[in-house]
Amino acid sequence: MNDVASLAGVSRGSVSNYINGKKTKAETQAKIKEAIAALDYVPNAMARALKTSKSNFVVFIVPTVNSPFFSELSYHMQQELQRHAYKMILCNSNNTSEEEIEYIQMANAQKVAGLITMSYANVANLIDTSIPLVSIEKRVSQNVPLITSDNYMGGRLAGETLAKLGAKRLLFISKKPVKNISAVRERGFLDYCQENDIFADVFLARKKINFISDFKRFVKDNFVDQHFPYDGVFSDSDEYASDFYHILIQAGVQVPNQVQIIGFDGSRVYARQRITLSSIKQSTAHIAKYAVEKLLLQIESKNERTFLGETTVIPVSFEKGITTK
Amino acid sequence: MNDVASLAGVSRGSVSNYINGKKTKAETQAKIKEAIAALDYVPNAMARALKTSKSNFVVFIVPTVNSPFFSELSYHMQQELQRHAYKMILCNSNNTSEEEIEYIQMANAQKVAGLITMSYANVANLIDTSIPLVSIEKRVSQNVPLITSDNYMGGRLAGETLAKLGAKRLLFISKKPVKNISAVRERGFLDYCQENDIFADVFLARKKINFISDFKRFVKDNFVDQHFPYDGVFSDSDEYASDFYHILIQAGVQVPNQVQIIGFDGSRVYARQRITLSSIKQSTAHIAKYAVEKLLLQIESKNERTFLGETTVIPVSFEKGITTK
Repeated sequence: MNDVASLAGVSRGSVSNYINGKKTKAETQAKIKEAIAALDYVPNAMARALKTSKSNFVVFIVPTVNSPFFSELSYHMQQELQRHAYKMILCNSNNTSEEEIEYIQMANAQKVAGLITMSYANVANLIDTSIPLVSIEKRVSQNVPLITSDNYMGGRLAGETLAKLGAKRLLFISKKPVKNISAVRERGFLDYCQENDIFADVFLARKKINFISDFKRFVKDNFVDQHFPYDGVFSDSDEYASDFYHILIQAGVQVPNQVQIIGFDGSRVYARQRITLSSIKQSTAHIAKYAVEKLLLQIESKNERTFLGETTVIPVSFEKGITTK
Repeated sequence: MNDVASLAGVSRGSVSNYINGKKTKAETQAKIKEAIAALDYVPNAMARALKTSKSNFVVFIVPTVNSPFFSELSYHMQQELQRHAYKMILCNSNNTSEEEIEYIQMANAQKVAGLITMSYANVANLIDTSIPLVSIEKRVSQNVPLITSDNYMGGRLAGETLAKLGAKRLLFISKKPVKNISAVRERGFLDYCQENDIFADVFLARKKINFISDFKRFVKDNFVDQHFPYDGVFSDSDEYASDFYHILIQAGVQVPNQVQIIGFDGSRVYARQRITLSSIKQSTAHIAKYAVEKLLLQIESKNERTFLGETTVIPVSFEKGITTK
């Protein structure tokens, strides 16, 4: 590297920046490129990583990147890691613990710099304790920091917003089993309704692939004299909320005039467009920011993970789409 | 590795499979894990990669993962690479050549196994010619295989479908500048209309961030006596098509009764749900499959990239949503 710097007539730091993909002036870049070519110098990141026992890869495990929330979060995660000169290895676990375990074995074997997981499997004991680890949404173990949206307040906010917008007969919809963060969202919603004497029902579709038929049947069975007996619907995810929205529209219900709907997540389908469904918005940018921050703390303090069982709770907010007044 | 296999009482192959994250029986895994712990053996993928001058990382550069098409494609790409024991490093270039160049420098420095890019920048001369490379949608150079959907036939199919469904006054919408694959889609559409004596107009929004205002103005200016003078609309992307759909709905136009709309991409917002917009569907699964196949051919033939300037054209299909009859 010294030879390259000397031949190019630039500082060693500039060469290092260039090699590590940091920004360098076009003019400097050209000089360094020429020197590298002349000297046949191969900047080998793997050799460096091996020497320092460190790599700059961070594994990010999501259930699937193919949904608005996870793709938005993956986008911010990659940008945030890049800001700190780390590269993101993206893994889709497809919600199976088997695939997740494979990735964790890979992370152990590759000596990656760290692991950020939205784990749904019980994987804590599989992870090499020397690998910095951050979990999102669900705690992996007591020694691992957790980043989570304020799901309970999100549920309350949904109830409060529907009530303030005039809804009087509320309904929570989801599918069985309602667990983890979804149950917390439901709890917040029902607590708000109970504390404020607001009528609230719960309908849960059965646990099966074609659970949408349960939503359809529920709407049909409850539809009497052109009238749907609920005027405010909250779901723990935009996905179910959008299913329900389309079923109501097809049944001739006017949304939001007769029934208002609020989902959860609030991620945009296209970054440029507004959201369609009104929703309790999770700040994916902040989730990514804090996940990377907590990971870097561990990497920099030589992987001491004790005392790190803290939880960072990210506030949520209501965002209006076309399904509320 | 021999010591681990011997102590665990399993084959060397089983240990290798375990280390490389391939499937092994739970019982075998337990034995290997115990032996690894007893021997304090660190299977270091980086050390192996360095020894063989190979890594199993493939860089995939997309403009942004945060849109249905790119997130669906990224999902399939990761799954396809995983099937062949490669890991995907995901990079969002944000459509800037600067960020893309940084990633390519990183790929050169890290000695990754290969690079798959949906490049919008002119980056051919920056890439170390020893790195296997596949481009999607836009050719990087004459020596690099290209995987692309059949954009021309997609445009024709949109025209044909609208005509068969009874539309008589067609409109192509997009924004300036219409280039590359978008121009090919437009050409296919207009060629079909011309050859079949079907009336077809083109409206292009100006090149600016808030181009949607141009779509709104166009709808308003052309709206005479409750009547919009076009009954079939095609756009080169689902994104613009969905913008236009919402503008028409807000103007009181009945879709699909008065105006039918077909977009391009056909990616699902949620994998489980049906598409909303009728669309010319790109097969993201096939694009990923062939991109990885062409990359592996290069990796296996020791990176000889000559004669590889071939194009693999993936057929498209029409998929019905709620915006056509």
